[in-house]
Amino acid sequence: MGTTRLEAVQEPKHRHLKTVIGEALDSEFAVGQILPNERELAARFGVARATLRQALEQLTLEGRLQRRRGVGTTVAPPRMGVDVSTSSQDWPGGPGDAWESAGCLLTAPPTAVSIALGTDSDGDEQVHTVRRTLVRHGQPVAAELLYVPQVFAPEGTDVPSATAGAVEVLRALRRLPLDGQDRAVELGSAGADDAKQLDRLPGAPVLVVTTRYVSADRTAAVSVATYRADTCRLTFGD
Amino acid sequence: MGTTRLEAVQEPKHRHLKTVIGEALDSEFAVGQILPNERELAARFGVARATLRQALEQLTLEGRLQRRRGVGTTVAPPRMGVDVSTSSQDWPGGPGDAWESAGCLLTAPPTAVSIALGTDSDGDEQVHTVRRTLVRHGQPVAAELLYVPQVFAPEGTDVPSATAGAVEVLRALRRLPLDGQDRAVELGSAGADDAKQLDRLPGAPVLVVTTRYVSADRTAAVSVATYRADTCRLTFGD
Repeated sequence: MGTTRLEAVQEPKHRHLKTVIGEALDSEFAVGQILPNERELAARFGVARATLRQALEQLTLEGRLQRRRGVGTTVAPPRMGVDVSTSSQDWPGGPGDAWESAGCLLTAPPTAVSIALGTDSDGDEQVHTVRRTLVRHGQPVAAELLYVPQVFAPEGTDVPSATAGAVEVLRALRRLPLDGQDRAVELGSAGADDAKQLDRLPGAPVLVVTTRYVSADRTAAVSVATYRADTCRLTFGD
Repeated sequence: MGTTRLEAVQEPKHRHLKTVIGEALDSEFAVGQILPNERELAARFGVARATLRQALEQLTLEGRLQRRRGVGTTVAPPRMGVDVSTSSQDWPGGPGDAWESAGCLLTAPPTAVSIALGTDSDGDEQVHTVRRTLVRHGQPVAAELLYVPQVFAPEGTDVPSATAGAVEVLRALRRLPLDGQDRAVELGSAGADDAKQLDRLPGAPVLVVTTRYVSADRTAAVSVATYRADTCRLTFGD
């Protein structure tokens, strides 16, 4: 089969340490267990604190470790698969949709959303903004802002409460034909609101899923959903 | 519309600074431009260096800034959309597949891959391991390891070169019926080999896309592809 070496690249020290600690996690630690402090770990593995921190950071990115506020660094459970395939999805709020609405108001959306919606991005054309949360096994896994121009949900504008507004807006969408949707996943950092909803620190890495819902050749809604990158893997396929 | 405040959560200083710098990037800086050094930036915005670093880190996660080896921190171009929808995909190496093979050899795959493939994960059952790269606009955007058990590609085992081996293994796959595939996206950190292929530093955040290819009720191949999280957004949809 030839002589190409897949592992021909010299590994930096922190990367090798990451592998060694990963093996120790498998053999010596249970899920949820709190790791010894950095000083002890650095001594055990005979490395500098900076090297240790890099290795722990990478194990956190890979979902092996979890930084928990007020607890410390613990061994993470396997990531949860969360289905984000478009085929299984109808309009937001349709049957089988597990998201919970947390309120609705009128806001001027971010520029990228205005452009996608074809609303006035210079001025301050306000759109319905529904905030929703996805909870799995008692844990919040994603926070969403769903933007809907008022023209698509005029009934939602004049209702007594934010919760009733969310219901009206989602109901109005379901009356439209859904012709298609496209979705993109990218890396982002949690804003203060999302972080609070997700029980994370602001600025923590998140997976941002942006969905454009198309009805009669127009974008009728844009959803920007922020998934916890530490506990979720996003699944799709046929 | 009620009184729910979407932005009711108090923002930490680094998060507010991130917004302020983001606006400065829009109005004062061009794509590719090198940012002033940390000392100058901290002085301009009247913040501590630690706060500045947090804000820059978040703008990097969000794809607004890029850390370039030997250059410094520059303003990033918009992220590239890379289609990862399963509907547009056939077997790897099929028509329209833009990935380039970089070699093939026999390896004992990681435990999670062995389990998915149903090969012997305790011992050292070796499988074909094809390394491939995806290049867009002259830039490497993703590095892949494609694992195929020898039983599905017996012809690939006894060929003169690693490149010929890759061709044989992909050809053998295309002779099988493809009954389905599922895919998952999660956050990871770049290994030394992937980092080199992607021109990143080892440990940098990446988006890991794992695909399972199913033929006649068996997993015939598993692909683990590592996409640059700084320059890519993964798109899918109908």
